[in-house]
Amino acid sequence: MSRELIIEEMKERVFQANLELPRLGLVKLTWGNVSEINRELGVIVIKPSGVSYDAMKVSQMVVTDLEGNLLEKKSLKPSSDLATHVVLYREFTDVQAVVHTHSTNAVMWAQAGYDLKAYGTTHADTFYGSVPCTRTLTKEEVLDNYEENTGKVIVETFNERNIKPLEIPGVLVSGHGPFTWGNTPSKAVENSLILDEVCLMAKETEKINQRVVDIPKFLLDKHYLRKHGKSAYYGQ
Amino acid sequence: MSRELIIEEMKERVFQANLELPRLGLVKLTWGNVSEINRELGVIVIKPSGVSYDAMKVSQMVVTDLEGNLLEKKSLKPSSDLATHVVLYREFTDVQAVVHTHSTNAVMWAQAGYDLKAYGTTHADTFYGSVPCTRTLTKEEVLDNYEENTGKVIVETFNERNIKPLEIPGVLVSGHGPFTWGNTPSKAVENSLILDEVCLMAKETEKINQRVVDIPKFLLDKHYLRKHGKSAYYGQ
Amino acid sequence: MSRELIIEEMKERVFQANLELPRLGLVKLTWGNVSEINRELGVIVIKPSGVSYDAMKVSQMVVTDLEGNLLEKKSLKPSSDLATHVVLYREFTDVQAVVHTHSTNAVMWAQAGYDLKAYGTTHADTFYGSVPCTRTLTKEEVLDNYEENTGKVIVETFNERNIKPLEIPGVLVSGHGPFTWGNTPSKAVENSLILDEVCLMAKETEKINQRVVDIPKFLLDKHYLRKHGKSAYYGQ
Amino acid sequence: MSRELIIEEMKERVFQANLELPRLGLVKLTWGNVSEINRELGVIVIKPSGVSYDAMKVSQMVVTDLEGNLLEKKSLKPSSDLATHVVLYREFTDVQAVVHTHSTNAVMWAQAGYDLKAYGTTHADTFYGSVPCTRTLTKEEVLDNYEENTGKVIVETFNERNIKPLEIPGVLVSGHGPFTWGNTPSKAVENSLILDEVCLMAKETEKINQRVVDIPKFLLDKHYLRKHGKSAYYGQ
Repeated sequence: MSRELIIEEMKERVFQANLELPRLGLVKLTWGNVSEINRELGVIVIKPSGVSYDAMKVSQMVVTDLEGNLLEKKSLKPSSDLATHVVLYREFTDVQAVVHTHSTNAVMWAQAGYDLKAYGTTHADTFYGSVPCTRTLTKEEVLDNYEENTGKVIVETFNERNIKPLEIPGVLVSGHGPFTWGNTPSKAVENSLILDEVCLMAKETEKINQRVVDIPKFLLDKHYLRKHGKSAYYGQ
Repeated sequence: MSRELIIEEMKERVFQANLELPRLGLVKLTWGNVSEINRELGVIVIKPSGVSYDAMKVSQMVVTDLEGNLLEKKSLKPSSDLATHVVLYREFTDVQAVVHTHSTNAVMWAQAGYDLKAYGTTHADTFYGSVPCTRTLTKEEVLDNYEENTGKVIVETFNERNIKPLEIPGVLVSGHGPFTWGNTPSKAVENSLILDEVCLMAKETEKINQRVVDIPKFLLDKHYLRKHGKSAYYGQ
Repeated sequence: MSRELIIEEMKERVFQANLELPRLGLVKLTWGNVSEINRELGVIVIKPSGVSYDAMKVSQMVVTDLEGNLLEKKSLKPSSDLATHVVLYREFTDVQAVVHTHSTNAVMWAQAGYDLKAYGTTHADTFYGSVPCTRTLTKEEVLDNYEENTGKVIVETFNERNIKPLEIPGVLVSGHGPFTWGNTPSKAVENSLILDEVCLMAKETEKINQRVVDIPKFLLDKHYLRKHGKSAYYGQ
Repeated sequence: MSRELIIEEMKERVFQANLELPRLGLVKLTWGNVSEINRELGVIVIKPSGVSYDAMKVSQMVVTDLEGNLLEKKSLKPSSDLATHVVLYREFTDVQAVVHTHSTNAVMWAQAGYDLKAYGTTHADTFYGSVPCTRTLTKEEVLDNYEENTGKVIVETFNERNIKPLEIPGVLVSGHGPFTWGNTPSKAVENSLILDEVCLMAKETEKINQRVVDIPKFLLDKHYLRKHGKSAYYGQ
């Protein structure tokens, strides 16, 4: 397939995945963005900045190189969070798509500044352990290259805790909100949906039972591994 | 009616009941399944595993015998929770249909690990007492035959407490979520809807009044028995 | 207008008001009923019992006399809550329509067993003071003539507190749910909507500020009286 | 453009912005109003009082002078909150449109009587610091010229705290609800949507983490200033 055609198909997928965000109730106004990478081609496709979902066209998707430099004439400006996506793609080499939202329940947890613990099998089916909440960025990290440093603090969090990005395909950035990722834009969006739902469930679980603890490791393993990896037996 | 026709009609009912789950907001993605049994025919019909509700066809409903063995060539794989359904049908002999969901409010209670008490008449109209929460499965029960053991722990819970399955047509599996049942797939789905709503009501009732207690037995009796049994006078 | 025509129009209004309940999210399944009275004609029109809103027809509305005796041949059975409506009409002589629902937020308060205090002007625009929660019915009141006694305990509550029914057009029945009323079926439904919304607001207000108190009497007066009575100046 | 034509366009914008309120879930029944001012023309256009959104027509929008006196024959009565809008336009001279709602989450905060703190970047993207809650009005302020005094207590709050109205384009009136504003009716409505969403997020954040504090000033600055002012780089 030609480079042009591959990029056209990336634009279409990124466009559709962006539209899915308000449809799923994960994004109000313009508060979200989806991107996809093709490392062989050296190309990232991402939503333009601040364009309303109603008016957005597939042709407006922004094409950049792997450092986030614009590749097309007459391009719109990319999402202001592009630099975060670039860092995630550089460091998380098995991630092909990234989503950022301000979905209500995930933002609540991010604002609370706590990790999201695995209180049940709904969580374990997708996230193989707690979804981490990053530390707060320092003043220096915010003043210069804020969006890049947001990516770096996510990577730092995953490295320090020795988490594989595809085993826990999402993060809560403290005081800000969620990022999720996956093999495809639609899978990364699905992970945003699940993260938001699991945040809601965990929040209310803690209110019903203030002493609730994580499910046991063997139950976490069972549910995660029946859906992922070699021994998976869920689905067709 | 011929065996083939009966099975066709079971497939149609199971298909429609499965579609009802996302319509009622009880299921996101593929997180639910409905089955129906015909004991005379020795047949269970259940949703295929991991098939999206949008793409699902009536012909894809999976037909098994009463032990869960596939009965049709070219069959899709059945829901991974089939073994739980099989145990429930074997032990709860007056149950004709089973539903499993990850509906938001019922999962919260299941994750909290508490029985759902009868705080009002909305509960009493359908559930004749607390909806029990099972104990957590042991490591051994999770490692081998997890889905079958999920069924067994539900049955154990009902036996220990001496509950008749049709008098409390639902359960919370600790750390996991709800199962409900009924005489028909549509009745079992209705019970899932009611269980989720009653979980929501109970959760918030406890927040408004932290010392709330169950309604008195005579009010529970009144509401349950005006809708069920010989002296029922609700409906046409 | 002929007696027949007046009753036809009552049926149409009661039918439309019943349909409005699920549309407004106040009723799931068959959990609600609306009635209207015409005292000159000696007629009450009410929803039939347990008929689904999808299948319900205007011709199925049930016509009774002021004691709740059926007046039409081939009538369906009336709502099982008819006896409650009958008592309210007998004792609250300026009420023309009654609504009962199990709307989520009002049920939470009724289950909690607390009066709904006036924490803001949204409440004061419709309810001229706390919406009372009844006492729990005694065993005797539940065993015999339960629905009639539900009406009586509502009336007892309003009499003891010296509340005029049209000034606080709703009540929470302890452990059960809300009844509301008004001059017309559509106004009574509107009051159900407002009661549910105000229950939601009050519940969350108490969580944000656990020491919140009622708004001052002068603000309650201002908002209630700018919408009701001789000095009202809201609306056209 | 002729005076007539300018007013026609104002009516159309005000009408559309009013319709947007129930569409966005910010208004039930008739509980909201939007207005726009043209200071050169000496004209305010506002929603009529108590007219249902379903029946409302663009021609029914009410035109007044800058003191709120009706300018058109056969005019409907203006929103009862007009006097509040008039004060806000007089004192907040860079505001072109005002919105009042009883949106659920903002009312909860207003009833709680607390300022809405900036717990995250979703807040900081629109509100440059805490959204203030006014003091409660005195008895005298409520008895005479209540709506005008509502405007005055908003202005007092902003003056005392030295807040620029366009930097924090909204307020919570204690025991009542939110007002927001902006350069255009649609922007003012957008600010109502954001205020309600941020109220929801903050409320739940406080429940997850009872010791949560405001985000640091440098993060507030970063997010607010990347969307507003000379150094903004968000959007096209």
